[in-house]
Amino acid sequence: METGRKIKVHAPATVANMVCGFDILGFAVKEPYDEMWMRLTEQPGITIINKDNYQLPVEPEKNVAGAALLAMLEELTTPVGFELTIHKHIKPGSGVGSSAASSAGAVVAANALLNGVFSKEDLVRFAMNGEKLASGVKHADNIAPCIYGGVTLIRSIHPLDIVSLTAPPLYVTIVHPQIEVRTADARSILKKQVYLKDAIRQWGNIAGLITGLLQSDYELIGRSLEDVLIEPVRSILIPGFNTVKVKSKEAGALGGGISGSGPSIFMLSKDEKTAITVEQEMKRVYEQLGLEHHTYVTTIHSTGVDIVEE
Amino acid sequence: METGRKIKVHAPATVANMVCGFDILGFAVKEPYDEMWMRLTEQPGITIINKDNYQLPVEPEKNVAGAALLAMLEELTTPVGFELTIHKHIKPGSGVGSSAASSAGAVVAANALLNGVFSKEDLVRFAMNGEKLASGVKHADNIAPCIYGGVTLIRSIHPLDIVSLTAPPLYVTIVHPQIEVRTADARSILKKQVYLKDAIRQWGNIAGLITGLLQSDYELIGRSLEDVLIEPVRSILIPGFNTVKVKSKEAGALGGGISGSGPSIFMLSKDEKTAITVEQEMKRVYEQLGLEHHTYVTTIHSTGVDIVEE
Repeated sequence: METGRKIKVHAPATVANMVCGFDILGFAVKEPYDEMWMRLTEQPGITIINKDNYQLPVEPEKNVAGAALLAMLEELTTPVGFELTIHKHIKPGSGVGSSAASSAGAVVAANALLNGVFSKEDLVRFAMNGEKLASGVKHADNIAPCIYGGVTLIRSIHPLDIVSLTAPPLYVTIVHPQIEVRTADARSILKKQVYLKDAIRQWGNIAGLITGLLQSDYELIGRSLEDVLIEPVRSILIPGFNTVKVKSKEAGALGGGISGSGPSIFMLSKDEKTAITVEQEMKRVYEQLGLEHHTYVTTIHSTGVDIVEE
Repeated sequence: METGRKIKVHAPATVANMVCGFDILGFAVKEPYDEMWMRLTEQPGITIINKDNYQLPVEPEKNVAGAALLAMLEELTTPVGFELTIHKHIKPGSGVGSSAASSAGAVVAANALLNGVFSKEDLVRFAMNGEKLASGVKHADNIAPCIYGGVTLIRSIHPLDIVSLTAPPLYVTIVHPQIEVRTADARSILKKQVYLKDAIRQWGNIAGLITGLLQSDYELIGRSLEDVLIEPVRSILIPGFNTVKVKSKEAGALGGGISGSGPSIFMLSKDEKTAITVEQEMKRVYEQLGLEHHTYVTTIHSTGVDIVEE
């Protein structure tokens, strides 16, 4: 461990839930991603420098990356100092794992500087402290894909059990309408109890989606991208949601839904041409609604947080 | 179509639910199976002959195989007659798909005599009428594996969407304690609503089980064979259930649980030796409880209803 050593990482955006897989599925995308520089310092402790205009806190215990690093430091026997510089490109509150990118990027970068003493599962555990700070819940459906890459299944949180799923090539179109949906609010409007018959329909779709991904069956993926439990409740917080969904499917998308707790909406397509047509349809919907928005056409990112400079 | 033509089929027992996959998963086993002979007759209508001592009804509308055949006849434009002789080896009420074997065996045999005019999905639709008669619910988690073979996913009942899942070699140990659990009773004690957090745990396990099966990951299969919703309620109807489960896992079983709505219990093992040790443990439990019981050591049957003589 050599103080002064520096590393740069790209921490990708992630899409949690994947429609039917509430709290258990998520995937990383190639774009957007945060740029982060991490330096080992002689002085123990954590320093955070934000290189953007989001006014995010710099006190480690109030910053999601800081919270993740603090959890990591607790398990180190020797005192270590980190200086973390973050250039956020993933807008906070967009629903594509902005907080997860900060937490996951920070612990992956720190672990690389510590010569990989921690496993990926350890890193997920640390980074979940950032999610706890951001939303009040230690969920892993953004953190896990951000660290593992590709599509990940979180079979269980206690004990933590993460499984990487192979998936066929999939293009992802994302639209972020510029409204605010707080993760905590999106969580609080969910009912604590659900009908067993609805839960059965939901886990039939989850089973179908997993099978479709592992067997590269695009039609089955499309049929399974249905959420009878969460989407009907949460989508009312997102203007234009139903129109975006209808128009995207008409344009050839396999299906899609709310990214995480929203407000971003994602759609999966088999090819890039369709994904671009879907983007145009999404833009048209929000132009008609007079709502500012950003769109991305990207693919599933198989590697998660990338170390780009050492 | 030639009247007088005769066919013989073996209709296998099936294990529905597969622990966490309530109402959506099921698999066929090599043993036990029913033997059935079907003959095309000049006289339209359905005749049923029972070659066993179970006192099952012979009136087509009261017999599960009859109900399935009646549904099939409704979709035929020319009048047809069937004479069906059933030798039941799967004890009714055992929880390993006895009614499904009758219904599925009957329609597969009839369809073969009709030169395969109907698809497998059609046959499932017809046979579900037998399940409706037997339990009041048109469920397909025994019917589908009985007709398709192997492990099947019923992603959806409306519309019907059945997906065959590839699975690694698995040995199955089944114990049938000779008590009666009526499917209708086992269904009525279930709560109509469940906690979302429990449903999430359940679909995490379902996703893990599917992934384990498709990726031949035995450890993941084992970790995922957990049911937090149905088993805690239904297992109270089955004396010795918890002991059987603990002893089977100690003996090396990957896991298992209630077969369908019980009272049979099944356990999955990676090899035959373990499956036989599990059988011995199961026997010991019911000998100590002084409860009559039957056991089977078998494997997953990949082909479903077999035509054995034409």
